[in-house]
Amino acid sequence: MFKLPPELQSELALVEKYLLEFINFGKEDKTLGEIVKCVIENSGKMIRPSLLLLSGRFGPGYPECRERLCKLGALLEMVHIASLVHDDIIDDSPLRRGKPTIQSRFGKDMAVFTGDFVLSRVLYHLMNEGLLDSGIIIGETISAMCRGEIEQFNSHFDPDATIEGYLSIIRNKTASVFIASCSMGARESGCDGNFSKGLTDLGNHIGHIFQIRDDLLDFQSSEQKEGKPVHVDFRGGIFTLPVLYALQHPEHGKKMRELIIDCEKRPVTDIDIAAMEKIAKQSGGIDFAKEQIVKHTDAAYSILKSLPDNEGLRVITAILKWISSS
Amino acid sequence: MFKLPPELQSELALVEKYLLEFINFGKEDKTLGEIVKCVIENSGKMIRPSLLLLSGRFGPGYPECRERLCKLGALLEMVHIASLVHDDIIDDSPLRRGKPTIQSRFGKDMAVFTGDFVLSRVLYHLMNEGLLDSGIIIGETISAMCRGEIEQFNSHFDPDATIEGYLSIIRNKTASVFIASCSMGARESGCDGNFSKGLTDLGNHIGHIFQIRDDLLDFQSSEQKEGKPVHVDFRGGIFTLPVLYALQHPEHGKKMRELIIDCEKRPVTDIDIAAMEKIAKQSGGIDFAKEQIVKHTDAAYSILKSLPDNEGLRVITAILKWISSS
Repeated sequence: MFKLPPELQSELALVEKYLLEFINFGKEDKTLGEIVKCVIENSGKMIRPSLLLLSGRFGPGYPECRERLCKLGALLEMVHIASLVHDDIIDDSPLRRGKPTIQSRFGKDMAVFTGDFVLSRVLYHLMNEGLLDSGIIIGETISAMCRGEIEQFNSHFDPDATIEGYLSIIRNKTASVFIASCSMGARESGCDGNFSKGLTDLGNHIGHIFQIRDDLLDFQSSEQKEGKPVHVDFRGGIFTLPVLYALQHPEHGKKMRELIIDCEKRPVTDIDIAAMEKIAKQSGGIDFAKEQIVKHTDAAYSILKSLPDNEGLRVITAILKWISSS
Repeated sequence: MFKLPPELQSELALVEKYLLEFINFGKEDKTLGEIVKCVIENSGKMIRPSLLLLSGRFGPGYPECRERLCKLGALLEMVHIASLVHDDIIDDSPLRRGKPTIQSRFGKDMAVFTGDFVLSRVLYHLMNEGLLDSGIIIGETISAMCRGEIEQFNSHFDPDATIEGYLSIIRNKTASVFIASCSMGARESGCDGNFSKGLTDLGNHIGHIFQIRDDLLDFQSSEQKEGKPVHVDFRGGIFTLPVLYALQHPEHGKKMRELIIDCEKRPVTDIDIAAMEKIAKQSGGIDFAKEQIVKHTDAAYSILKSLPDNEGLRVITAILKWISSS
């Protein structure tokens, strides 16, 4: 990965400090303490808080707004953590990033309430810090994430699933959080309308790249490499770009459709997976997904060109380079 | 049930109006719309918003604070609704109040995200309405509810479960919401410290009566009467006062303990239930639970005597009479 500038490192350390302080569960709750520790260990590279902090470099209110940005970064990461805990229930995932999920270690019941607990702490601290404007964005973001998950659930094993439907799902469930990161950074630092719009659009493109790339990894990686099983999506009836592109293909669409209709009726086998991979590849579905990443990357670079050169710009450019090429 | 005074009826109608407005899911989300409709239909007698509205009668800020109280009533009812949706996942309940639960109709996955969606709307509207003080109480209340559920889950089929542990669970998972109702009403209407404390304590007693009575119904009712199966608690390893009292009984404790240890190892049968009922009754556990209801009822009446006579007092008295005797 790229090297973070020292200042961002110290801000991310502050984000982590607030994260621990905000999730604080009280010493009496031993189980909750153990779960929350495990949740935080499982959490990721803090890419969402980083984008928030970096977007906050573009307004005249920086660096005065730094402390507020770090608190919001912690709260946004908590929203992300809560969503991971609840997602794992749905996916029935045994592992996340090579480590056991909350639901596999503590049971689905605990996962439901741990996620709710973390969300309740987000609500409490937004109120307690009086972060109304950003709180409204966070509220809308969580709603969008739920909408996206519900849309996704509704399209399980749907042979009529479309690329448009998929784009709505990933806009809601993934891009919304990246959009929130960038737009909160812009807003809290007092960016003008143009910069604000540019940063919000940038969040949207980065979010799309992030999800399409993640979906492609489900096609390409081995269990060892990514720390999670492969083709979980297709096995669970979730169809991503390579499959959806193949479905609408004049030549290969029929085969993919028949496979999906078969797979809905019985457990998906490795033979089904091999067949699906073959059709997706032959139809050009995997290339199509890669092209979408290029399209969003180009659009993101073009926005970056319109922004003033500062540390925020340089590090976001590095993040973009890393996300779009890895 | 008691007859609501016309003014409370019109306020509860306003609570319902805000409830529908706040949960608003957007016309595009057909499934979410269907689920939310089902959720609202399954919601109860609005006892928590009623207590909030009635507690709001005791401060000098009434009736100016009415609109705000109605909004908070809707938001508190939404917290209750979200918790019911998530609880049903854990309980694996097919029915609530005689109607199919969200998870039995739409699946556990949908139940997780519907609950989260409703919570996200609570967060959004608290921010949007700038209801910071009460928002802090709501945040703490949701955290307490999660703590209570986690404590309860941890004590499943625990032969060392105690009455103290049970009291902590019901304080967190149930009484906290009644406490929030009364203390938000007191705070928003500008009650002085004494009235505020009295009303908060009143909420605590009513919450305890409510839960202990509900637990006893699981002992007494038939499936037809309450719209839900009987002895769900014991079958699921949740031990309430009659069982916990028997467990610590010098004469009957050993039998109950052995039964519990047996039941943990295999599916609980009707013969187990009959044995548990017999021990609970013989030990005086059912009478003990009823005595606790009387104790909290007496304490609640004594608080009511210290409050000024107004519509709030009269209707809370009627609610208390109904809850404690039915």
